[in-house]
Amino acid sequence: MRSLGFVDGKIIDLSENAVPLEDRGHQFGDGIYEVTRVYNGKCFALDRHIERAYRSLRELKIPAVYTIEEFEEMHQLLISESGIQDGAIYLQITRGVAPRAHGFPENVVPRLTMSIRPSTSHSKLMEQGVKGLLIPDERWLRCDIKSLNLLGNILGKQRAKDAGCFEAVQIRDGIVTEGTSSNFFMIKDGLLWTHPVSNLILKGVTRSIIIEELAPALGLTVLEKSFSPEFVQKADEAFISGTTSEIMPIISLSSTLVGDGNVGPITRKLQQAYQSMIAKQCG
Amino acid sequence: MRSLGFVDGKIIDLSENAVPLEDRGHQFGDGIYEVTRVYNGKCFALDRHIERAYRSLRELKIPAVYTIEEFEEMHQLLISESGIQDGAIYLQITRGVAPRAHGFPENVVPRLTMSIRPSTSHSKLMEQGVKGLLIPDERWLRCDIKSLNLLGNILGKQRAKDAGCFEAVQIRDGIVTEGTSSNFFMIKDGLLWTHPVSNLILKGVTRSIIIEELAPALGLTVLEKSFSPEFVQKADEAFISGTTSEIMPIISLSSTLVGDGNVGPITRKLQQAYQSMIAKQCG
Repeated sequence: MRSLGFVDGKIIDLSENAVPLEDRGHQFGDGIYEVTRVYNGKCFALDRHIERAYRSLRELKIPAVYTIEEFEEMHQLLISESGIQDGAIYLQITRGVAPRAHGFPENVVPRLTMSIRPSTSHSKLMEQGVKGLLIPDERWLRCDIKSLNLLGNILGKQRAKDAGCFEAVQIRDGIVTEGTSSNFFMIKDGLLWTHPVSNLILKGVTRSIIIEELAPALGLTVLEKSFSPEFVQKADEAFISGTTSEIMPIISLSSTLVGDGNVGPITRKLQQAYQSMIAKQCG
Repeated sequence: MRSLGFVDGKIIDLSENAVPLEDRGHQFGDGIYEVTRVYNGKCFALDRHIERAYRSLRELKIPAVYTIEEFEEMHQLLISESGIQDGAIYLQITRGVAPRAHGFPENVVPRLTMSIRPSTSHSKLMEQGVKGLLIPDERWLRCDIKSLNLLGNILGKQRAKDAGCFEAVQIRDGIVTEGTSSNFFMIKDGLLWTHPVSNLILKGVTRSIIIEELAPALGLTVLEKSFSPEFVQKADEAFISGTTSEIMPIISLSSTLVGDGNVGPITRKLQQAYQSMIAKQCG
């Protein structure tokens, strides 16, 4: 079992130099990415990730030069070549390589690079819940694109880490948007609340699975509706969702307990339903 | 004379693979950059660029591991190795190479890469002036950091190109901020107006030279004060400033003429003063 990279159709060692200086990813963050979890040697929800990758490419006007089947084959190749059963596959597509100038270059081929690494288990944190930190949302106004421009997210995540928290939950103009690498949900009086799809949040794959599959199966109602940090103070439960963090309970926000500070029953039900779905899809 | 790159203390060909997949520049745009013009084989205003690079690094909490003298030597090396007399040197420093995770990695060394290319002359455009396009400013709230997160700038520049314009001038919350790779100035009743230094604009090197050196020498007053796009409609003259575009007259904005649509006398005086300064510094 070993972590590895994939560039130009070839498996490489992750330490290798694989990108030219003038790749637009390296100089502008001009590209998109996806992270797909691998459980038991199988990709989870890969169709949703590929669909979102196509959307991100369209929004940035980067030509899509790979078919769904090719994406699937490349993911499979990384799993088999690495021998990794429980891990994450990272896929990135940049606009390509061209002499540096802001406008789109002509006649360039988008550049796909991938990697696979084993995942570290969050199971203890998912059992106990984690702390969150409320911070101002300083990101750009196209957070709906899963782009490589992640400095706002990085600085936010680091603020959370510095405060001993697992994730930062961002606030823009008095509205709670999302985490730095996750979506945010709160539960009050049995209803699930989360920020509606807009230019201000990423339409997370795990978020969609919760809204479209898990919640309906459990008879839960989701309101995709904006809410303030003051409203979050009245929450009975809260959690973040994401490919890596899965469904992670938030038991405090900026040192204020969420509900009674314990992981709540609805969060638990959703976690169990999510694990069942993984087991069903990935065996 | 040839364009070339510089990585790990070595001169390389620009087409070479020189960056690992997990460089934080490649995956997050987690780094800073500077572009310095070379005239007559000499760097112009390099001290100001280096000073700003240090500030950007501080703001992103990336350790500064190079001295001013080392930066100067590396710039000189690229000029002598390339034989380029009239060009631009690009310098980029990323947080380093580490397994992908949003928070700052520990024990990584920042990674410096550079390149030099000949510059194309804008002299005809500087004589005639260019068209600008007003667009919404969709960038993040730390535009004061010269970071690699440039997608907002790229999409704005491309909108300008698609509309047959040289540059897009951005508007946030009813205020004119700056161009996508330049600062914006307007002139009314003999006074120069430009957005004050804040988190919403980059403190451009050319902007600083105009405010601190050229305008005072010409007896011109600069107001660093916010203004609206409606106020710009009353401008007598307008221009953008930047290392690459130098002092570039804007003769129309979103198809509305600026003043009478000709390059104005104050813009001309500033252009001449800037060229004299270049001649003085670079011979």
